[in-house]
Amino acid sequence: MNLDAAMAAAIEQSEKVKGRTYPNPPVGAVILDADGQIAGVGATAPTGGPHAEVVALRRAGERAVGGTAVVTLEPCNHVGRTPPCVDALLTAGVAAVAFAVTDPNPVAAGGATRLSEAGVHIVAGVGADAVAGGPLREWLHKQRTGLPHVTWKFAASVDGRSAAADGSSQWITSEPARADVHRRRAAADAIVVGTGTVFADDPTLTARLPDGSLADHQPLRVVVGQREISPDAKVLNEESRTMVIRTRDPHEVLKALSDRTDVLVEGGPTLAGAFLRAGVVDRILAYVAPILLGGPITVVDDVGVSNITAAQRWRFDGAESIGPDMLLSLIPL
Amino acid sequence: MNLDAAMAAAIEQSEKVKGRTYPNPPVGAVILDADGQIAGVGATAPTGGPHAEVVALRRAGERAVGGTAVVTLEPCNHVGRTPPCVDALLTAGVAAVAFAVTDPNPVAAGGATRLSEAGVHIVAGVGADAVAGGPLREWLHKQRTGLPHVTWKFAASVDGRSAAADGSSQWITSEPARADVHRRRAAADAIVVGTGTVFADDPTLTARLPDGSLADHQPLRVVVGQREISPDAKVLNEESRTMVIRTRDPHEVLKALSDRTDVLVEGGPTLAGAFLRAGVVDRILAYVAPILLGGPITVVDDVGVSNITAAQRWRFDGAESIGPDMLLSLIPL
Ligand SMILES: NC(=O)c1ccc[n+]([C@@H]2O[C@H](COP(=O)([O-])OP(=O)(O)OC[C@H]3O[C@@H](n4cnc5c(N)ncnc54)[C@H](OP(=O)(O)O)[C@@H]3O)[C@@H](O)[C@H]2O)c1
Ligand SMILES: NC(=O)c1ccc[n+]([C@@H]2O[C@H](COP(=O)([O-])OP(=O)(O)OC[C@H]3O[C@@H](n4cnc5c(N)ncnc54)[C@H](OP(=O)(O)O)[C@@H]3O)[C@@H](O)[C@H]2O)c1
Repeated sequence: MNLDAAMAAAIEQSEKVKGRTYPNPPVGAVILDADGQIAGVGATAPTGGPHAEVVALRRAGERAVGGTAVVTLEPCNHVGRTPPCVDALLTAGVAAVAFAVTDPNPVAAGGATRLSEAGVHIVAGVGADAVAGGPLREWLHKQRTGLPHVTWKFAASVDGRSAAADGSSQWITSEPARADVHRRRAAADAIVVGTGTVFADDPTLTARLPDGSLADHQPLRVVVGQREISPDAKVLNEESRTMVIRTRDPHEVLKALSDRTDVLVEGGPTLAGAFLRAGVVDRILAYVAPILLGGPITVVDDVGVSNITAAQRWRFDGAESIGPDMLLSLIPL
Repeated sequence: MNLDAAMAAAIEQSEKVKGRTYPNPPVGAVILDADGQIAGVGATAPTGGPHAEVVALRRAGERAVGGTAVVTLEPCNHVGRTPPCVDALLTAGVAAVAFAVTDPNPVAAGGATRLSEAGVHIVAGVGADAVAGGPLREWLHKQRTGLPHVTWKFAASVDGRSAAADGSSQWITSEPARADVHRRRAAADAIVVGTGTVFADDPTLTARLPDGSLADHQPLRVVVGQREISPDAKVLNEESRTMVIRTRDPHEVLKALSDRTDVLVEGGPTLAGAFLRAGVVDRILAYVAPILLGGPITVVDDVGVSNITAAQRWRFDGAESIGPDMLLSLIPL
């Protein structure tokens, strides 16, 4: 197996644990034996547990000797809750280490240098864009800015409506698209809505599996706005924890979530507009259904733009079909 | 060259003449010689001129003998302004004829049967979906329904706006997307707008080449609405003909355009809503820019839907990048 294919497998591993590794990043690792066959795979274990490399090395056992470790992030070089991964790799006797992204954290960095000095062959940057734009996007953002990464997700008709004229919106998108949203919820640290959405839809805001049962990991539910919501609101039920933030300032919301990494803003149009005007949205995920609704309820009200020359400019970084719907992804220009 | 590749070349030929072959369909043809090499290509000539097969056969000359004719439409079997293509194919001595779509016109049909009876090998249905959904879509619709095919085209931000809050909309989409619109205009028979767009934008509604000059073929410009537009409106200039239809009834508009095949409705939101509510739109082309605008000006106002269960349901039949923008195509479910 070549390095690109092994990295794809490592990415797949990391995606399985996204949302459950705090404060560690969701990393994936694959150990190839000396013949280039997969000897072990692994991903970051929940908090305090071993890192991805260590999980994969354990599975590979003796077959790691003379092999190659393929990891989505540069192996760490510091003693945290676990000993440095660099030590584990050297002890296991791998001949080479390939990784996608350099560790931006000065405390943990330096792993590649130490491995190289110990005679291990290093290949940096394998699948770097896929990892930096994918499973590690939110964590890297947090490392760089100190703030959680904010994704604004919406479901819309082709004409940009998030509900029909009478407010009904269940369901705009198809079952496969909604399943995708639930997967993303399960990987997020928090889901944010405004009080308006709670009053209009009374959503539970939980992550569910296709059979309707609760996913293993539930994000924190966050309700933003000055109005008091009913104690009977479903968002306050026992299925997950909930934070009510009685503000209209997106910066205050981010401050309250400063220990989180991956925040999903699910609307509605008033809250989305506030986050967009504040310039704190890092990614847009638009689930677009092949339907027309018309009417007054748009996906976002006011983004602070009056003239076309002042338009908020983004860039498409993905477009895929999900069942009958399209998922468009945008990142800042 | 195999039949699929030859059909792709024939489709390409037909696309070059779209909009200029009335009342004939825009057909493309490729003649392969006995060795399977391209011996000649052709497309329907402007009205009264030869059909695609005849053009391609002339270019192929002697090399057509024992070869294969690959045509987007079943060769015709009737004497119109030109003799039947079947005769030309038999005279040229081709051994086989492959075509995409059967001629739905009872007067012209029967070509395949006559060729087969004369000992020519027939392959029907090569690239049928690409042709029926592509270059012949509008013509087939007209044959089937007697009505022009109506495409609603709009340019929008990701949040479904067709202008910023102050009405400014130049330009929402990129230069490559606008060039694509101009290519489609040059292939259409008519472009329809409401008086509102004339008052707001004073567009010329011509088809232009990237250098700004007029395209060879200009569609009829159509302005719909009860208000009188200024005699100085650019849409009335000398660059093409213009029809002013003082009605608000889309069916009356289609009646006035009943001798046309390919009609492009370019908005704005009021007119688009009227056509959608009347159920006379056959295709939607959405040029979506990676920008956010917010505000009150949406791509369509009212499509006659109050509850989500009554949504107008369509189906995506294409999504492609054009420069930084996306072009989404939808057809009825
Ligand atoms: N399709 C989708 O993806 C989607 C997702 C969610 C909701 N929706 C639809 O959206 C509709 C609800 O719309 P909505 O706009 O009322 O919901 P919302 O944006 O969730 O909530 C609006 C409320 O957020 C609070 N808020 C927080 N920051 C604010 C700020 N900076 N400025 C103003 N208000 C701020 C205000 O509450 P206080 O007045 O309490 O301060 C405001 O009333 C429903 O029809 C629902 O179905 C659709
Ligand atoms: N982004 C795009 O693709 C795009 C394309 C075009 C326009 N626009 C924007 O759209 C805005 C103009 O919007 P608009 O809605 O006024 O333009 P519009 O839809 O082109 O024109 C509206 C007018 O159409 C007439 N009309 C025809 N049938 C009608 C019906 N069944 N019901 C009601 N009216 C009917 C009415 O004129 P009478 O009152 O004379 O009867 C009405 O005032 C501008 O800001 C422009 O930039 C954007």
